[in-house]
Parts: sequence; structure tokens; C-alpha cells
Amino acid sequence: MEETIKTLGILKARHFCVRLDAVRLRNGKVTERIKVDHPEAAAVLAFPDKDHILMVRQWRYAIGAETLEIPAGKVDPGEEPQACAGRELQEETGQRASRLLEIFSYYPAIGYANEIIRIFMASGLVKVSGEDGNEISAVEVVEVDRVHDMIMSGRICDGKTVIGLSLFKAKMERGEIPDNFFV
Amino acid sequence: MEETIKTLGILKARHFCVRLDAVRLRNGKVTERIKVDHPEAAAVLAFPDKDHILMVRQWRYAIGAETLEIPAGKVDPGEEPQACAGRELQEETGQRASRLLEIFSYYPAIGYANEIIRIFMASGLVKVSGEDGNEISAVEVVEVDRVHDMIMSGRICDGKTVIGLSLFKAKMERGEIPDNFFV
Repeated sequence: MEETIKTLGILKARHFCVRLDAVRLRNGKVTERIKVDHPEAAAVLAFPDKDHILMVRQWRYAIGAETLEIPAGKVDPGEEPQACAGRELQEETGQRASRLLEIFSYYPAIGYANEIIRIFMASGLVKVSGEDGNEISAVEVVEVDRVHDMIMSGRICDGKTVIGLSLFKAKMERGEIPDNFFV
Repeated sequence: MEETIKTLGILKARHFCVRLDAVRLRNGKVTERIKVDHPEAAAVLAFPDKDHILMVRQWRYAIGAETLEIPAGKVDPGEEPQACAGRELQEETGQRASRLLEIFSYYPAIGYANEIIRIFMASGLVKVSGEDGNEISAVEVVEVDRVHDMIMSGRICDGKTVIGLSLFKAKMERGEIPDNFFV
């Protein structure tokens, strides 16, 4: 394991904080580690039918570009990840889901962040409100096969979207998605 | 797009830095964004034969746990990502690869980091040195099918390992890996 010697600096944002720590490695050497202390997040593959998912276009400040991704967001304090998935889906697309199923959880940036992203599938969608005008510029219904093609050709390069679609396909092939999920 | 108003704080580590910026959203509202300014990284699926890959056990400070992952690391200034993949493979496992093939690039943490991870396949492995004693506690040869099972059962939850294996399988199914790559 690696032992914290001391915190050299800290940067606090509204929802998470970043620390720079001096750390002792397993062989005794000393180095620095950045640690982004981040809440859990939830992402959603939302199916209007079994061949399509909802995707959102949004500006990503960290990379300075607009992307096409599955809806996602940070879990609020005290909120269950599944409730967060439903809330973020509704906030970003205006759609409420009657069924949510967790299919995978992972660490996106294990080298410097403790964030866990939990990926859900959603179905039974009903339009209940408008789309988010703060961060989302468009909501699109995209064929699952087309999303896969866009990943394979490098046009979609958002990690959670790639993992969500890949794990959905693997679980379908293994018969691990209930037959009645899309009904 | 989102416009930077000013930087509120900054945290500099040896290889990257983190900024907290005040930002104007597309609808005029003001919010804060964390941006981890991170160099590119390379990760390697290294095949001693076509059914096995090399994996490393290492302590991950950010999550406080030991993990099983594919070898990876940050690209040095002026270094090509492919050279980085070969260097990190050799540093972490002691194996030099005669063939390296880039199969995918993605943003692991698009919400707060500009890091791009480029995933390579490697073959033609030759043992040329010892393993890294600083950060790696063990190098393991693991069957590809077993890695897939460990992902599906949630025992492997490192994003780049999940994406590397998923994209490798998808490219094999599509016939996009050259027949002679493993020879």
C-alpha cells in the first residue's frame, strides 16, 4: 500500500475537492499523488425501444469540445445511485423512466480520482418535462448499432458511453438482460 | 460553448495541474468547473500468445486498494504515445514488444480532465529486464476469457482495462486485427 505523509495543497470546488499529497511508496520511496475526491456518479442507457438509446450533446469544458454522450451526473449527498440515474435522465432529456437496472460500475480515472460511475439501463420512458437548457444543447435518439459504429470509428470517445454500450452488448449476448425489460 | 471568466485556484503536481475556473455557461449562467490538465496516457494489452494478456497488480492511492489492470502510464514530454506504450510495458513487466498496434483512444473522465488514453495491443514479447519494484507488486499472465469473466462479474473495475478488452473483442469479431499479429 501507499502511505500519506502529508497534504501539500488542496483545491475545493462545490461538489468535490482535489488534494496533492506526499506519499510513501511500498519500497519506501517518496513521491506525490493527486487525489480527486469525487462523489459517485450515475450514467443511463435509456431505451425508448430496444434498438435505440437517448443521447445528449453538450459542451465539455475540460476538453473544449462538444460531445455526444449518454446522460449522466453526480450523485447528490444522501441520494441513491439509481435515484440519481432517474433524476439526471429527467433533467437532461425530460424523460421519466419506469424501469432502471444497474448493469456495471467502474473507476474511470483510477490513477487520480476515487469516482465510481454506476451505469444503468432505463426503459418505460415518458416525456414529463422540457430538456435541460443549462448544459445540454440537444437530445438525440440514436440507433444502438449506430452508436457502436461511431465508437468503432472513433467518433464517440467518452469513456462511460463506450463502457455502457460495450457492457450492454456483452450482457445481451450472455442473456443477462431480462426479456421483458424493453416491453 | 463555455467561456472561462477567471481561474479561482490552481494545484500543480509534477506531471499535471488542476485548475478551478469560474465559467459562463451557454445560457449565460455562471458556475465553477474543475479542469485536470493531464498529459496523454498509453495503456497496453500485451499478448504472450493470442489467448493471454499480461496484467499488473498495483496499489491505487486514489481508491485505497490494490487492483489488477493492464500496464499503462503517462506520455513523457516529446514522446510518441506508441513509444510510451512500449516503455511502460517494459518498465512495469520487464517485457519488450516487437509489435505495437493502436486500437482505441478515449477520454476517461470527460467531466473534469482532458486526459486521453490511447490503448495499444502488443505482441512479439521478449523478457529483457526485471519488473518495476516501485509501484507494481506482481505481473500476471491471465487468460483473455478469464479477464472478460472478471469484468462481467465486477471483479475488474478499472475503466481502461474494461475498454481495452471490450474493444479488442469487438475488433476481433469485425476481423479488424491482422491475422499475423499474434505469430
